[in-house]
Amino acid sequence: MSDRDIMRSSVRHFQRYYSPDIGDALRMDTSTNVLGPHPAALAALSDLSDLNLNQYPSTYSDGLRQTLAEKYGLRPDNFVVGAGSDENIDIICKCFMEWQDSAVVPYPSYSLYDFFINMNGGRVIAVELDDEFQLDVDSMVKAKGKVMIMPSPNNPTGAAFREKDIVEILDRFPGIVVVDEAYGEFTGRSMIPRVDEFDNLIVIKTMSKAYALAGLRVGFSASNLKLADMMSCVKIPYSLNTLSEKAAIAALLDDEFIHRTVRMVRENKPLLEKELQEMGFQTYPTDGNFLLACSPIPHRTLVEGLKAKGVLIRDFGSKRRLENCVRMTIGTKELNDIMLEKMREVISECR
Amino acid sequence: MSDRDIMRSSVRHFQRYYSPDIGDALRMDTSTNVLGPHPAALAALSDLSDLNLNQYPSTYSDGLRQTLAEKYGLRPDNFVVGAGSDENIDIICKCFMEWQDSAVVPYPSYSLYDFFINMNGGRVIAVELDDEFQLDVDSMVKAKGKVMIMPSPNNPTGAAFREKDIVEILDRFPGIVVVDEAYGEFTGRSMIPRVDEFDNLIVIKTMSKAYALAGLRVGFSASNLKLADMMSCVKIPYSLNTLSEKAAIAALLDDEFIHRTVRMVRENKPLLEKELQEMGFQTYPTDGNFLLACSPIPHRTLVEGLKAKGVLIRDFGSKRRLENCVRMTIGTKELNDIMLEKMREVISECR
Repeated sequence: MSDRDIMRSSVRHFQRYYSPDIGDALRMDTSTNVLGPHPAALAALSDLSDLNLNQYPSTYSDGLRQTLAEKYGLRPDNFVVGAGSDENIDIICKCFMEWQDSAVVPYPSYSLYDFFINMNGGRVIAVELDDEFQLDVDSMVKAKGKVMIMPSPNNPTGAAFREKDIVEILDRFPGIVVVDEAYGEFTGRSMIPRVDEFDNLIVIKTMSKAYALAGLRVGFSASNLKLADMMSCVKIPYSLNTLSEKAAIAALLDDEFIHRTVRMVRENKPLLEKELQEMGFQTYPTDGNFLLACSPIPHRTLVEGLKAKGVLIRDFGSKRRLENCVRMTIGTKELNDIMLEKMREVISECR
Repeated sequence: MSDRDIMRSSVRHFQRYYSPDIGDALRMDTSTNVLGPHPAALAALSDLSDLNLNQYPSTYSDGLRQTLAEKYGLRPDNFVVGAGSDENIDIICKCFMEWQDSAVVPYPSYSLYDFFINMNGGRVIAVELDDEFQLDVDSMVKAKGKVMIMPSPNNPTGAAFREKDIVEILDRFPGIVVVDEAYGEFTGRSMIPRVDEFDNLIVIKTMSKAYALAGLRVGFSASNLKLADMMSCVKIPYSLNTLSEKAAIAALLDDEFIHRTVRMVRENKPLLEKELQEMGFQTYPTDGNFLLACSPIPHRTLVEGLKAKGVLIRDFGSKRRLENCVRMTIGTKELNDIMLEKMREVISECR
C-alpha cells in the first residue's frame, strides 16, 4: 500500500505548487503590478490603532462588500469575499459541485482551476481554444459540466475572450459560468455590472494584479443575490483578515493608481513586443499585463539562464500548445530593458 | 425545484454563521484574548517598509514554519500553515476524506467541525462525551470514521481531555486523529512535540486565542512529515497573507505576553466561578479562557438582556446536553465585574 492511499482519490497525484527560490531576483514571473503596492492601501495600513486585532474580523467582510457595492452599483449581498480569488474558486466548487461532477475549462488556461476542481472531487473537462486562443463556443456549451470556469483575459495566453461569446455561453450552457476577471482592469471591461441579468453568472476578481496587493490575499465574487447567498453559506467564516480588508477598501476608493498602472502597461506593451520580435520571439496578442512568447532558443535554457542573471519569468514551454513558450510581466521601460538585456545575453551565450 | 437543488447535496441545509451586530459591545462571546492584540505583533506591523505587498506571499509560509520548527523542536516540514486553523480543518477534510466518508467528533463540541465535514461531502458521526464531558474512549474508537476531530480543551464545555485517553485513541483508532489545541496555552500541555511518535496524529492550533491575533487569521497544523507533505500538496498556495505571517512570527518569538495572559485567566477564573455560583449559575470545570455555565433564568432572556446592556456572551442553551447554558470569556477583574454587574441586573429584572 502506498502512503498516499490514505488520501482522497482525486488528490493523490497532487504535487507542491510553484514556489521558486526568489532571493533578490527581478520578478517578471507572476504578472503582478511592478509599480509597487497600492499607495492608498499602504497609507491605510500606516495606522492600525482603530483595529482590534485580538477580535475576529467581520464574518462576511461587510465593510469591503459595502465598498464593492458602491463601486459597482450593486448591493453588498451580490458579493462574496475570499482570501484571494483562489478561495472564491474553492467556494464555487464546494457549493455547486457534487462528487465526480464535471467542470469545463478552456485549454490552455490557468492551471489552478484543475487543482481546485480535483481537490473538491470533481473532474476536469478541458475544451480546446481555437487557433487564436479564443473560445470555441459550441464545444464549450456542449461539454457536459455542472460548472464552467474561464479567465478573461485568458492566462497564460493573454487575449480576452469576446464578450458576445461569453454571453452566448451564458445563454446556452446549462450550468454555472464563472468568468475570472483577474486581469480585467487592463481591458477596461467587466461583466460585474451585468450579474443580475443572468441566473448563472459568477464573476471573480483578485486584487493581486492591477490593485498590487498580492501579498494581502484579497479576492471576491459578484453574482446575483441567490447564488451569492448560497456561496456565503458555504464560505469559511471571517476568512479575510482585518488588515487586508482595511487595505482593500482604501485601494478600491482610489482609482488614480489603477489608471496609472493601466497607462504604464499600455505604453510599454508595444515596445516590449517589438524588441522581443526583433530578438526572434513570436509574441501572442495580449489584453493583460503579461505577454506569452515563443522563445527563439530552448525554453529551459532561456528561463534558467535568466534566473542565473537574476530575472524570473514563467516557463510554460513543456505544455501542449504552448511548446517553447514563456510568460513575462509587462513592466516599466526600465524593468523591461533590464529583462530584455539579460535575454539578449542568454540568447547570444546559447548560440 | 428548490433554488438550492443546484447546491452540493451535503451543504443545502447550510445557513450563515454567527455574525452578531457588535457596535460598541463588550465581547465576552468569542473566547478571544481580552488583553488586546499581542504587542510584539503590533510592533512588527508598525514597519511595513520591508514588505513587497504587490508580490505574492511565500507559497508555504516558509518563514513562519521555520519559526514554528524552532519553537517546538521539530522541522519546518512538520507544519502546514493556514489562514486560521479553520483552513487546516478544511485541508484535512479535503486531503483525507473521500465523498461520504465519515468523520468522528465528540458531542457536545465545536460546531464548525460539522460544517467542514459536510462541506467536503463527508458524514458526521457524533459520539457522546460522558457525564463529565470527558471522552468515551471505547465508543470513539469503535465509531467507524476515516478521520476523528476533537478539541482539547473542549469547546464549549471547557475541560481538557485526559492525555492518556487521547493516546489510547491514537493507538486504537484506525484513521487520522486531529487534536485541536485552540486553547492549549491555558493548559500548559501540548501534543505537538509528540507528532513524530504517531503515524496518525495531526495537532492543529490557532493564534486567535492566547496569541490574541484573531483578526489576522493564523493557524497551523503539526504532524509527522508524511502527513504534512500530503496536506501541503492540497493546501491553497500562499493562503496566509504577508502581514499576518510577519506578525505571527513576532508573536511566537515573544512568550511574555502569553505567560501574562495565562496568569490573568488563572487568577480570575475562581473569582468569576464563585460569583456566578452565588448568582445561581451552575458552572462547569474549564481548562480554557472561557466558562460554560447553566443560567438561573431562561438563557435567551439572559443573553438578550445582556446584549441590550452592551455585553455579548454566547448562547448554547438550545443545544441538547447544554440546555440553558451560556459560554463567556474569562476576562480581567474589571471586565468580569462589568459582565457580572449586568448579569445581576438582568436576573433581578427577570424575577
